[in-house]
Amino acid sequence: MSGLLAIDAGGTTTRAVIIEPSGHCRGLGFATSGNPTSGGSAAAIAALVSATERALVTAGAVAGDFSSATIAMAGAGTRAPIEQIRARLAPLGLLGPVEVVSDLLATFCSGTLLSEGYVVVAGTGAGAARIEDGRIAAVADGLGWLLGDAGSGYWIGHRVASAVVGFLDGRAPQTALTGLLVAALDLEPAPTQRGERPVLLAQLVDALYALRPVELSRFAPLAFQAHDDDVARGILADAASELSATLASVRSPGVDGPLVLGGSVANSGLLSAGLPGNRSAVAVPDGVVGAAVLGLRRSGIRCDDEVFRRLTDDVGALRDAARSNLAGER
Amino acid sequence: MSGLLAIDAGGTTTRAVIIEPSGHCRGLGFATSGNPTSGGSAAAIAALVSATERALVTAGAVAGDFSSATIAMAGAGTRAPIEQIRARLAPLGLLGPVEVVSDLLATFCSGTLLSEGYVVVAGTGAGAARIEDGRIAAVADGLGWLLGDAGSGYWIGHRVASAVVGFLDGRAPQTALTGLLVAALDLEPAPTQRGERPVLLAQLVDALYALRPVELSRFAPLAFQAHDDDVARGILADAASELSATLASVRSPGVDGPLVLGGSVANSGLLSAGLPGNRSAVAVPDGVVGAAVLGLRRSGIRCDDEVFRRLTDDVGALRDAARSNLAGER
Repeated sequence: MSGLLAIDAGGTTTRAVIIEPSGHCRGLGFATSGNPTSGGSAAAIAALVSATERALVTAGAVAGDFSSATIAMAGAGTRAPIEQIRARLAPLGLLGPVEVVSDLLATFCSGTLLSEGYVVVAGTGAGAARIEDGRIAAVADGLGWLLGDAGSGYWIGHRVASAVVGFLDGRAPQTALTGLLVAALDLEPAPTQRGERPVLLAQLVDALYALRPVELSRFAPLAFQAHDDDVARGILADAASELSATLASVRSPGVDGPLVLGGSVANSGLLSAGLPGNRSAVAVPDGVVGAAVLGLRRSGIRCDDEVFRRLTDDVGALRDAARSNLAGER
Repeated sequence: MSGLLAIDAGGTTTRAVIIEPSGHCRGLGFATSGNPTSGGSAAAIAALVSATERALVTAGAVAGDFSSATIAMAGAGTRAPIEQIRARLAPLGLLGPVEVVSDLLATFCSGTLLSEGYVVVAGTGAGAARIEDGRIAAVADGLGWLLGDAGSGYWIGHRVASAVVGFLDGRAPQTALTGLLVAALDLEPAPTQRGERPVLLAQLVDALYALRPVELSRFAPLAFQAHDDDVARGILADAASELSATLASVRSPGVDGPLVLGGSVANSGLLSAGLPGNRSAVAVPDGVVGAAVLGLRRSGIRCDDEVFRRLTDDVGALRDAARSNLAGER
């Protein structure tokens, strides 16, 4: 089975696909975060390997015959240990080079074959880019949970947690997010006080500090669930305005073209009202199709509309199949 | 040498004093953070031991004869491994119990012998309390760098770092904090670009993620240094309003009494304009005198104005001596 390996190594989920030169996708596999910045190199490499193994399983193979691996990563993987990744993917059939590309560019290429336009990625992290001549011409944010990622899943989840903690501490307004967060953390809501504070506050604080900070992105969906709650609405409005500002900072009057939105937060409907110029957007779940497009191009294969449609349809079908398998298991 | 051991285990610095029943202070020692939440139990215990050893050195002794140890800690040390601390302090002469008290209460007791009033602590972390009958009647914040500590040194330092990163990323206004942060991190300012971004941005991001998050409190002083800068001024104004709100949330109309301010941020002048009711405040550097007062009281020793003055004067003199030693070494 000859082909290419394409991987989107996200902050929460890694997706790997096995692609034929025709654009047909033979296998799709998922794993946890493959981003070295999120959880360290060892965990990232393990996730890349695991996603590839699972893609091989869905392709009905134990090893591939890959002429290259194209890996999309936030921050263009400046910290990616490329040689180690290649060594670990070789036993799975990687014969050629590993190339790391920007997750922003890969996401753009998941949505369009055009060589100019804009992309906003907002999943666990968040960033935006302007694309010209098929390359990144300007980029903003994507600087990680501690210093950037404004409007991202982490950013929203952190504000959800802080709003609940602030309410229980008597410093912030009541919010429906409280019950949702307590349920999400599987805490028994204890209405009693310990000393001068609610026991629940201490339980929450302990549970939240036990997570890695970036895992607070788990609580972003609660803000969408609590759509009637003023606090939740405020958090989402602020997130939308952060993402719009990030996009605005990469705009250039001379560059038009499509806007591609990638990641669960960007595709939540959050941005529909807040986009400068209210332009229509192409929504894509992630950058795995784009990583495949970039991989095919590097291999000298022309990626036309037909190849692109095949790729998108095949990956979509495998995604649906994976989803029903998952639903069946539950 | 019989006496008591009193320790203030702060988020950045631990201070230990050796106190006689008369209130005379025989030794003062410093070490790094003794708070288990900041850097883990092992590092915290090592800091408590090290500060005690150094206090013994300044007292001219190798071991003490302590009837008790009173340790002030944020969050009232709910995570403090008391038995392990006692076992490690025993070889230094601890004969009796270890008691952990709230750093807020200890700081209040560093400033006054009255049994009712208010305290705001803002150093690495930040919190406020109302004191009634010599005990904490209400407390707000102090919930750590990730979920609270609004207006603290961490909070300010994090905003300093984010403002500079945002400026270099083209998403935030120019700020004089940039040069100060680059100098504080000992970076060579490289005016060149890597791809579409300044090299300096990548250098800064790498240097900042290499720190433990709570260490961003190191950059809080930069906001005070850049007093003519609008961005820095905005950060400090926001910090003052956060601290004022935290104090306001523990106020009770029926409780008057002094306001004690502890920690470098609370004593920076930041709060002078922002205090509700513009009440005058008692400034104290930390909670080590108060930990000693609480320790004396638990030992059944009446702590009157004379004992309190002796304690405050002695600790102040030892602090000055430590400062000149340090200056002499430089």
